[in-house]
Order: sequence, then C-alpha cells, then structure tokens
Amino acid sequence: MQLAEHFRGKKVLITGGLGFIGSNVARRLVDAGADVLLVDNLFPEYGGNRFNISGIESRVRVSISDVRDEPQMRAHVCDQDFIFNLAGQTSHLDSMEHPRTDLEINCAAQLSILEACRAHNPGVKIIFASTRQIYGKPQYLPVDEKHPLNPVDVNGINKMAGEFYHRLYNNVHGLRACVLRLTNTIGPRMRIRDARQTFVGVWIRQLLEGKPIEVWGGEQLRDFNFVEDVVDALLLAAAREKGNGDVFNLGSSEVVSLKQLAQALVELNGSGSFAVKEFPTARKAIDIGDYYSDFKHFQKTFGWTPRTPLHDALARTVEFYKENLDKYV
Amino acid sequence: MQLAEHFRGKKVLITGGLGFIGSNVARRLVDAGADVLLVDNLFPEYGGNRFNISGIESRVRVSISDVRDEPQMRAHVCDQDFIFNLAGQTSHLDSMEHPRTDLEINCAAQLSILEACRAHNPGVKIIFASTRQIYGKPQYLPVDEKHPLNPVDVNGINKMAGEFYHRLYNNVHGLRACVLRLTNTIGPRMRIRDARQTFVGVWIRQLLEGKPIEVWGGEQLRDFNFVEDVVDALLLAAAREKGNGDVFNLGSSEVVSLKQLAQALVELNGSGSFAVKEFPTARKAIDIGDYYSDFKHFQKTFGWTPRTPLHDALARTVEFYKENLDKYV
Repeated sequence: MQLAEHFRGKKVLITGGLGFIGSNVARRLVDAGADVLLVDNLFPEYGGNRFNISGIESRVRVSISDVRDEPQMRAHVCDQDFIFNLAGQTSHLDSMEHPRTDLEINCAAQLSILEACRAHNPGVKIIFASTRQIYGKPQYLPVDEKHPLNPVDVNGINKMAGEFYHRLYNNVHGLRACVLRLTNTIGPRMRIRDARQTFVGVWIRQLLEGKPIEVWGGEQLRDFNFVEDVVDALLLAAAREKGNGDVFNLGSSEVVSLKQLAQALVELNGSGSFAVKEFPTARKAIDIGDYYSDFKHFQKTFGWTPRTPLHDALARTVEFYKENLDKYV
Repeated sequence: MQLAEHFRGKKVLITGGLGFIGSNVARRLVDAGADVLLVDNLFPEYGGNRFNISGIESRVRVSISDVRDEPQMRAHVCDQDFIFNLAGQTSHLDSMEHPRTDLEINCAAQLSILEACRAHNPGVKIIFASTRQIYGKPQYLPVDEKHPLNPVDVNGINKMAGEFYHRLYNNVHGLRACVLRLTNTIGPRMRIRDARQTFVGVWIRQLLEGKPIEVWGGEQLRDFNFVEDVVDALLLAAAREKGNGDVFNLGSSEVVSLKQLAQALVELNGSGSFAVKEFPTARKAIDIGDYYSDFKHFQKTFGWTPRTPLHDALARTVEFYKENLDKYV
C-alpha cells in the first residue's frame, strides 16, 4: 500500500499543528485525504504561524488550544486514529530561564495526553518528535540510539522524559507509540524570527534582511534534514507497526560545518556575508560541539533515506522566505 | 577531618526528613552538632512518621510542609549549608496510577528547589537520592553507572529527570550537587505498612503479624544496603567535593535471591513462613528481574564500603520492629 493511502479517511490530530513540522505534515495528510485536526497555542514565542496553513485552511480543522489544557486535550484525542505529537517548547535558553514552563509543556502535558489516550482512545497510534539534544555532547560520532543520554539543558532532560513516557505507555498500557529523534530540520515554515526553534532560522532572516549571518564558533559539524524528508519519516513511523515502542534517529550523511553552511547560504542568496563570533556565555555552557546522526536503525527498519541534498534543501528554504519574509518576521 | 566534624554547627535541610533515610540522617547529624531542619508532608501514603525522630525531637526543627510548596521551600533553602534532598514519591505502582502526582513531586518540586537555591543560596551543597530503578531491566550484571538508563515505570522516568536536573544545576549554574543511586535500603524506620517504599517493609510486617511472607517470583537476585551504611555514604558525598556533578551507585557485594531473603527473615524471627506467588499483572509489567550494583566508582572515589553484613542488617531491623511494631502499622 502506498504510504499516503494509509491516511485516507483517517482521523489525525497534530499537536503543534500550526508549527514548522506540524504544518508540513498537515499539508501532506490533507492531500492524502485525512481528516486533520490541528492543535496549536499560537504563542508568539513558539513555532505556530497561521500562514503555515495558507492554502489548506478550508481542509483542516484548527483548535487554538494548549497541550497543557487537560480537558481540551482529552476531548481532542478521542476518536483519533493517529496523533502526531509535535508540540513542544524548543528553545534551550528559554528552558534554562523558565524551567517550569518547559516542564509543563514537555513533560506534564505529554503525560496528560498519554493518560487521556489510555483512558479514552487506547487504540490510537502516536508518533512523538524527540530531539538529538538528549544525547548531549557526543562521546562518539556518528551518534546512534545506543549512545548514552546526557542532556545538557532543561529542555533536553524534559524531552528525554517525554519520550520515555511514550515508550512506557506503549510497553505497559498497550498504546502504540513510536519515537523519532530529529536532528536539525530545515525548510519552509520554520520559525525565522529568532533562534528559538533552529539557528538556521535566524540565519535566513539575517541573510534576507541584508545583515551578516552571526555564526557562533563555526567549526562545529552538523547534519540536516529537509522537512519533507522528515514528513516522510513521520508518516512511515505512523503507518507501519514495526517501530512501536522503539526509538529512532533521523539524520543525514551530508555533514557540514556551520561555517560551510553559512557560506552555502550566502552563495545561494547571491549576496550577503557571515561573521564568526565567540559563543555568548549562556550558550557556551550548554553547547555540545560536533553532532551528526547514525540513522541506520530507521533506514533498515523503514527503508527511509533522506532524499533531498542539503544544497536543494537550502535553496528551497531561501526561495520560500524570499517570497514570504513578511509573514515570518 | 573526621566525617562528623564537617557538620558541626552547620545548617542542614533534609527533605523527607521524617522518612526512613531522612530520619536516620537526622539522628547522625544532631549527634555531630548540626542545626537540622526537617521538611516532611507526613502524607499517610509516604514514608514520614513522627516516631522516626523519637528521642531527638528537641534537637531538630520540623516543618510539616511539602516540597511542592514553592514559597515554603524557597524560605527553607536559604542559609542552609547542606541539603539532603531525599523527599520523593517512591511507589512504582502509585506512579503508574497517578503519574501527575509523581511528576509534581519527583520532577517539578526538584526543579523548584534547585531554582530556589540558584536564586537564594547558590553556595549550597545538595545530595540527591536517586534510585537503581532508573536502569530498568539490567542488560548486564553487576550494573555500573555506564549502564543505559531505561526506566520501566513513571517513577523511574521522573527520578531520572530529577537527578539530571541536579547535575545540570551543578554543571551550568555552579551549585554543588552529587547524586547517589540507592539500591534496596533496609533498616529501622522504613515504612512497613505496605510495599510502597520497599517490599522488605511489608515482609517484616507480615512476619511479625504471624502471616506468611508473600514472595512474588522468588528467584530474583538483589543486593541490600543497611541504612547506617547509606547514611555514611550520604554524609561522605556531602562533606567531600570530589563527587560534585557526578553520579554514583551504592550497593553491596552480598547478593541473594528473594527466597533466600525471606528464608533468612523467618530464621531470624524464630518462627513464620513464606509463600511464593505469581506476580500480580500490574506488577509484572514493570518488574526488572535480577539486579545488583557495581558500586566501585563510589568505593574508589570516597573510600566507602558497606560495613554491615546482610544478616546483621536483617537482625537489627527485625529487632527494631519487634519493639516498635505498633508505631508503624
């Protein structure tokens, strides 16, 4: 069966549905004929943006609500066939300044969503978006799923708990849940106002506003996934049963330094510059050095390989924000 | 300097101070001349018991308050030289039925204690009592600190987050914090009303009430520490600086099966019996099989070895509850 066919006529809830990855998942799912409900709190510090569903507004339902609102979420999870559980506080620095808020969103709300499913929709399939951040500073490269978990900020600790809850409810309570640990994801509809979601976002803003891209450090290696490839992975994990209870890295074989990435963006844009800077103190304490993923476990289990070369991913991203900059800054 | 001398005239806060381990720490500290404040909510489901400080009531201050009460805790942490952060929800089954409560105590309250210290008492030294439960089902034995963390219940996930918060605040915010992962701890003043704190507790109650000890499974191997040895370890970790930011297993080289343990208790008591039973379903899903610790890291760093043979630990425990059974059931 084609991947898209799994979702035809199916009821799907996407938390963080007006955000970067959520809205890209939604676009794919409405084309597949799914009945899609988006939950997003649209807080200005987070990734939600109404423009992210421009063109599909009439084909999705939207609830401006918060994953911390237990009664709302209880109502939302009932009758769903799939939940893409993507809502999260993503800023590492915010998590250090406001740890309790991060905990409420990334731990407590996750538990209450799972409890609601256990009570009212135990047959649901949940895909949880986790993050490479929980590995902390790599002890070896590329980082596979056996790498010790050693999160270096409150956000990483809480995301780690969030994914363990999902696997626990799979193993003990019979829900079906699969966890993907995303690496740096880039593409249309990411937050670019600041670095709260991804540093690449604010780089693109700097580039398009004619300012030098601020590169902290510069030699750190990273891998990147284009959002469409991540959507493929999320849909695969949802449609197939063989990842239930398990955790998988996403990632890419194309590894570049931050300087190289900045250089590539400047070239693609046809103008601009970047400036290498010292780490700000607050950031340095939680930086992790080089990181790139071993994603063979997901590749072997699901037959997934990222299809978009980094150059194309950057080009399509820059293109999108050139057209839509005013909607995102 | 003798260990006790480190605490003479020092201000010490013990969360869970009327509980099993907390009250034993308190007894040692008042003898050392410390100024001790005990915080305990005395909820009947938890380990607090006023009788635990019988004989030292006039030498400690007691605040019947809850670690979830942020303003109270903020006031309590100020001016302390040491915090033994021992309060916790310990029941694995309760954590599965009431995950949010477990989260509030084992995650959220920990974060708020640490935030209060960061803001009002950054020079404090904190010892956090974690648990072997966070390793889950051992992949090898004995289990050292490099063993993957794979908690199999909500309690384990939340305790894992709790210890990561402590290490993070040590590494990033400059507090001094050391984490000990306790194995099964036994001794006077443990909860014996039920199995919420340790299964050995309810065994002792069954034995002394003339009922057969209920042994689930029976072949599982475990190690045990006598509470006085654990108090030694906690005081060492507090007094010395070399464990700051690190995590250490406690444990014992004496490894026995649950059946052997039950047999030993019956022999020590001079009467009684035990009955091997099938696991109840809810318990089976989160059982971990054999577990015993590799505690060499703590041994080498601090020169600690548990001094009390299991037989003596059991004898002193049975003796205590024979005298004080009515205070604990």
